[in-house]
Amino acid sequence: MAKELRIGMLGCGFMGKAHSNAWLQVPHFFDREHKPVLKAVYARPEDKDKLEAFAKRWGYESIETDWRKLVERDDIDLIDVCVPNNMHHDCVIAAAEAGKIVVCEKPLAMNAREAEEMVAAVEKAGVPNMVCFNYRRVPAIALAKQIIDEGRIGRPFHYRATYNQDYTISQKVPQGGLALWRLDARVAGSGVTGDLLAHSIDTAEWLNGPIKKVVAYTETFVKERVHAETGRVEKVEIDDACMFLAVFENGSLGTFESTRYARGRKNYNTFELNGELGSVFFDLEDPHLLQFFRYADPQTGKKIEDHLTGWQKIHVTASEHPYMKHWWVPGCTIGYEHTFINTFADFLASLEGGPKFQPDMRSGLRTQRVCDAILQSAREGRWVEIEG
Amino acid sequence: MAKELRIGMLGCGFMGKAHSNAWLQVPHFFDREHKPVLKAVYARPEDKDKLEAFAKRWGYESIETDWRKLVERDDIDLIDVCVPNNMHHDCVIAAAEAGKIVVCEKPLAMNAREAEEMVAAVEKAGVPNMVCFNYRRVPAIALAKQIIDEGRIGRPFHYRATYNQDYTISQKVPQGGLALWRLDARVAGSGVTGDLLAHSIDTAEWLNGPIKKVVAYTETFVKERVHAETGRVEKVEIDDACMFLAVFENGSLGTFESTRYARGRKNYNTFELNGELGSVFFDLEDPHLLQFFRYADPQTGKKIEDHLTGWQKIHVTASEHPYMKHWWVPGCTIGYEHTFINTFADFLASLEGGPKFQPDMRSGLRTQRVCDAILQSAREGRWVEIEG
Amino acid sequence: MAKELRIGMLGCGFMGKAHSNAWLQVPHFFDREHKPVLKAVYARPEDKDKLEAFAKRWGYESIETDWRKLVERDDIDLIDVCVPNNMHHDCVIAAAEAGKIVVCEKPLAMNAREAEEMVAAVEKAGVPNMVCFNYRRVPAIALAKQIIDEGRIGRPFHYRATYNQDYTISQKVPQGGLALWRLDARVAGSGVTGDLLAHSIDTAEWLNGPIKKVVAYTETFVKERVHAETGRVEKVEIDDACMFLAVFENGSLGTFESTRYARGRKNYNTFELNGELGSVFFDLEDPHLLQFFRYADPQTGKKIEDHLTGWQKIHVTASEHPYMKHWWVPGCTIGYEHTFINTFADFLASLEGGPKFQPDMRSGLRTQRVCDAILQSAREGRWVEIEG
Amino acid sequence: MAKELRIGMLGCGFMGKAHSNAWLQVPHFFDREHKPVLKAVYARPEDKDKLEAFAKRWGYESIETDWRKLVERDDIDLIDVCVPNNMHHDCVIAAAEAGKIVVCEKPLAMNAREAEEMVAAVEKAGVPNMVCFNYRRVPAIALAKQIIDEGRIGRPFHYRATYNQDYTISQKVPQGGLALWRLDARVAGSGVTGDLLAHSIDTAEWLNGPIKKVVAYTETFVKERVHAETGRVEKVEIDDACMFLAVFENGSLGTFESTRYARGRKNYNTFELNGELGSVFFDLEDPHLLQFFRYADPQTGKKIEDHLTGWQKIHVTASEHPYMKHWWVPGCTIGYEHTFINTFADFLASLEGGPKFQPDMRSGLRTQRVCDAILQSAREGRWVEIEG
Repeated sequence: MAKELRIGMLGCGFMGKAHSNAWLQVPHFFDREHKPVLKAVYARPEDKDKLEAFAKRWGYESIETDWRKLVERDDIDLIDVCVPNNMHHDCVIAAAEAGKIVVCEKPLAMNAREAEEMVAAVEKAGVPNMVCFNYRRVPAIALAKQIIDEGRIGRPFHYRATYNQDYTISQKVPQGGLALWRLDARVAGSGVTGDLLAHSIDTAEWLNGPIKKVVAYTETFVKERVHAETGRVEKVEIDDACMFLAVFENGSLGTFESTRYARGRKNYNTFELNGELGSVFFDLEDPHLLQFFRYADPQTGKKIEDHLTGWQKIHVTASEHPYMKHWWVPGCTIGYEHTFINTFADFLASLEGGPKFQPDMRSGLRTQRVCDAILQSAREGRWVEIEG
Repeated sequence: MAKELRIGMLGCGFMGKAHSNAWLQVPHFFDREHKPVLKAVYARPEDKDKLEAFAKRWGYESIETDWRKLVERDDIDLIDVCVPNNMHHDCVIAAAEAGKIVVCEKPLAMNAREAEEMVAAVEKAGVPNMVCFNYRRVPAIALAKQIIDEGRIGRPFHYRATYNQDYTISQKVPQGGLALWRLDARVAGSGVTGDLLAHSIDTAEWLNGPIKKVVAYTETFVKERVHAETGRVEKVEIDDACMFLAVFENGSLGTFESTRYARGRKNYNTFELNGELGSVFFDLEDPHLLQFFRYADPQTGKKIEDHLTGWQKIHVTASEHPYMKHWWVPGCTIGYEHTFINTFADFLASLEGGPKFQPDMRSGLRTQRVCDAILQSAREGRWVEIEG
Repeated sequence: MAKELRIGMLGCGFMGKAHSNAWLQVPHFFDREHKPVLKAVYARPEDKDKLEAFAKRWGYESIETDWRKLVERDDIDLIDVCVPNNMHHDCVIAAAEAGKIVVCEKPLAMNAREAEEMVAAVEKAGVPNMVCFNYRRVPAIALAKQIIDEGRIGRPFHYRATYNQDYTISQKVPQGGLALWRLDARVAGSGVTGDLLAHSIDTAEWLNGPIKKVVAYTETFVKERVHAETGRVEKVEIDDACMFLAVFENGSLGTFESTRYARGRKNYNTFELNGELGSVFFDLEDPHLLQFFRYADPQTGKKIEDHLTGWQKIHVTASEHPYMKHWWVPGCTIGYEHTFINTFADFLASLEGGPKFQPDMRSGLRTQRVCDAILQSAREGRWVEIEG
Repeated sequence: MAKELRIGMLGCGFMGKAHSNAWLQVPHFFDREHKPVLKAVYARPEDKDKLEAFAKRWGYESIETDWRKLVERDDIDLIDVCVPNNMHHDCVIAAAEAGKIVVCEKPLAMNAREAEEMVAAVEKAGVPNMVCFNYRRVPAIALAKQIIDEGRIGRPFHYRATYNQDYTISQKVPQGGLALWRLDARVAGSGVTGDLLAHSIDTAEWLNGPIKKVVAYTETFVKERVHAETGRVEKVEIDDACMFLAVFENGSLGTFESTRYARGRKNYNTFELNGELGSVFFDLEDPHLLQFFRYADPQTGKKIEDHLTGWQKIHVTASEHPYMKHWWVPGCTIGYEHTFINTFADFLASLEGGPKFQPDMRSGLRTQRVCDAILQSAREGRWVEIEG
């Protein structure tokens, strides 16, 4: 008999939609003991109409316009934090103190100091917790991890990552408000660093180990924008673009770049890792593909025949690929939303005695520390070592 | 207030899964008056365990092991036929006679004669009906249709299509049984012609108008296989591969090919249309892309600057693209299952006064006639004109 | 000491240029005993200005406006036939009778009957001879041949080829004259069949063995064009497009298509071969790449690990690849003209005791027979077996 | 009547071959008043056998084993410096002082100080001069420049470049000697910075204007290698890899990376420029392609239709593309060697009253200054402004 897992959702925006869908879809495709039930959803009083429509669409049993009230409800097992970044800290801590399982969208916090307090809270409470870096569960990225773990890359030399988009080039895009709070530094904390590079860093450290030091540069191309809530032209405080060099603890070198001003790039979250025995390349705009260059086999040390080497496009849809046996048949792709479903499926498995879920909030804190170091390096114009 | 649309599902295999998911997902992403309710699902008595697990997973309220009983139940509005091909005829006719809305997986029937009777039945009963050629609702294919309708291809010269896979190369793959009935001619009717080329033909005629005549060749590479139900080695009667030349009524030429023996091709459903003003190319293995060559604009007749022409990879994920505004944000892909959701969303819209749904069963009959002509041409070694 | 090989060139058009360049370049990149010397070049009296400029540019020692005179000159060792197709027959036979080595551009002749007489003449005279199907010496195509010969494709199932271009779509393109004689049936013999499909057929039979039978369809989209020499609108007699199905003697199936009406395709000479153990794909628009799908190794029979299969893009520029050690360094591409240089280098090697050169004119006759069968099948609307 | 341009070549290695070929090929494909004549070639006395074979292969009239003697010969008009980097300075200055036209391979010098003296010498002597950054004459790169100059990119935001290879990963590769002097710091000056990044920087500043400041990091992965000349294991002093961030004077941001340790990358010289109106991307491994994203037209300001935007693959082989009308026909590619031929054709044109040739040595000095700043930044671990 399925055990109900009663979800309390904070937020009914884009991420609220992605998470609600994922909770409902897990049991359709994965065998788990828990059956998520959408119990309650929160939004601000001023967004109540939107909230009601959202609750109806997704089948939430009730709504709340006071998040603290929702967090404290007895009929909720898990709090899912999908509100803007500046609320993560308070919501996560309150949920932990209320003994709830806590799921939090990325980036974990506005900065590392906040994140430390959040980790302290969930660890003190002893509640299962996670930060939703959903891209670890893109099957092609999980396959890259598997290939690395199988030793097929060998000694790593280079890691390069981009996360480029182009949706804020126009001066007319406002900052703030429901849709564009990511451009409002008071709400988002930072610009592309927290929003996009946090993904790139989480992936990079997962695949290639800790970053030791960075030197960064940030830019704000459009200096002023109308604020959607005040109606006034206000200074833009976020970073529109951020690039940095990194040295990893394993001695390999990294280049990273993120921007919302790369005309023609929509979701250009890419990485490439080059090692002695092989290389991998991934691009989120073609999420079903992993490119793999195989030079020599780790066990035999035998080189591939010289005339037969080349970058391979692995169509990551076979049942042998991570997560894919749960979906359709070879050759049939899954999409963006499935990264959340795969994530929650693994999280439920961890609640049921499966492998400890990663990334948890302690991992999210680590990413936050790298983000903080990047922003500090950019401010100070010098190399900064990552702590912790 | 949402109006319940009570679904009776026939079949709990791969297509039963794809359809069940789609019915549940429509209201999460589209605004429709109807809310599909999974009322009952049928499978054969010998598959009862599988049926019960399926019903539980998808939330069907009840199960049936006699399909006629399900078809006749008063609490069902729509019969969704996802059983093997050799049952389509009887199920669709019975459903029509019981006054149900009828949805049928492709290919519509074992042959055109069956299909004619089915069309007669649904038209006599006056029930809404559709045949599920889901690929018309791949956003990139729908975009190709839009581009053609906008006049951007101009006078058509060539159409070429493939639908190639590689999963039956091994002699060890059995025929028949739950999973591999597509290799058993008595159940499937034909091999790649009905299974894969039917898709290619439906797309081709939708995009480029009726085919006038064909000359075809079929081959069965593996002549004998163990039958999964009898345990005996039996002759393979289906076509493993089929290729044909076509002349369209608009004077353009077509080449078509389908096989399950194209090593390395998994779901290589491609088409290319070349016209005076432009060309389009699509490949289902990269379903989020449409390739478009723009030579001149239909309204102004003005050529693109000579040094700037080239095949464009359109990432079909923008809100301006067909269906995509219902999903995520630009740059975020959807996958295989969404073609069914988009299809059912349009079908519900047609029930609610929206545009008449296509392809209906009369369209499915048309495709069946082309398939029959192909198989006849292959048998007789000569060109065959398509009737009707 | 290098031995002079005195070249007499017939023709000073596009092919005259390509061949002249190739003769001069061979000794710069290959070690051969022979050193080609550009002795004399022929064009029609009415093209004398062009001829003189051509001779000067390429360093020809003398010119002729009577081809028979050139063929009979004592100071010439090799006649290179680069005049239009309708002159091949007479030029080759005269050259053979004069005891010259004979090189002839493709297609060998206007039809198989002519080709038979040419083969008879060169074989009777016992002179070394070749027909210039230069694409066999694209390194990536030669690599495909090597991969096949190494057994890496295994039992073949499918071969598909296209040779598509788009340069005659406009009604305003004239037929005939120096530049566009390929559109004049009296000069070219046929349209895309002899011009483009001859290449595809030569490659196909080289890689996959003889074609047994074909069924073809041809079309002339633009029915009338101004003739550049008469100035009058005349009926177009060539095939603008040709498609055909083929059955190979090894039991595999083939689809072929060629056109000059595929908007956006410039030199889209592609082939794909699918076999039990692997597949290859090539496209002349990316001539430095060979795509290879490796499924299992021919010697061990061992499958590639399931999660690691994918189409490989081999960058055919390594010193281990055919011809490439003669050129630059890995990663540096060669281009169109090098296919001629590689061809002539091999031809010279064959004169010096190296492997017998292929394709010789007997091979060219074979291709001509397939072309004739295609055109006959298109005229008669039925399958035609290939003779010889 | 063609005017002889008598070439004196210093060096008979890889670059000597590329340049010799280019001098001979220019008059075959371009109309120039000058006809290059290969008069004399120099190599060290210890390489005399190689020198003689080289002279014979390319038709040099004489050889020299004392470069100063060659430079001073009266029958030489142009000195082409293709010897290793540590000789550029003396050779160029001596040639200038002898009043010769001077061509020099890149990088111009071991460092900016040397380069300054060289520029002073050629400018004092008033001799035509160039540094051979041949990639400016890749037609696709020249097309990128044209697109930028046409205003199609608009305000630039980002520039990113890589130049990655993989040929020195093995510890067994020696340093020094004829083939591998690029790994010997005393001969090469630097590693990838001077060898590969110099190309990237020349291209970047040509396309996007001057770089203002950089922060760099270099690494030597293999610390010791056998020296081919001494036979002893010696410390490796070059940079195996270099990455840097840049700020351009136009306010756009740049990331650059070069390495010889990117397994699977052979000649991965790429750049991407993102601007308000469009973007371009290039990769030298596919040198015939330019990728162009067109967002809005610079003159009308009109956006491309939203549903039709996408990255375009321009096959840079049409007669409308830079240089291509001199070569074959649309769809036919050229290769690596043609970049030199195009370069020398433009250089000859400049001698004949055509546009002033760029890059001249003053431009080469500029690139050298950026390289020096990069190496200084890497040594000192801080941002460095570029002078001059």
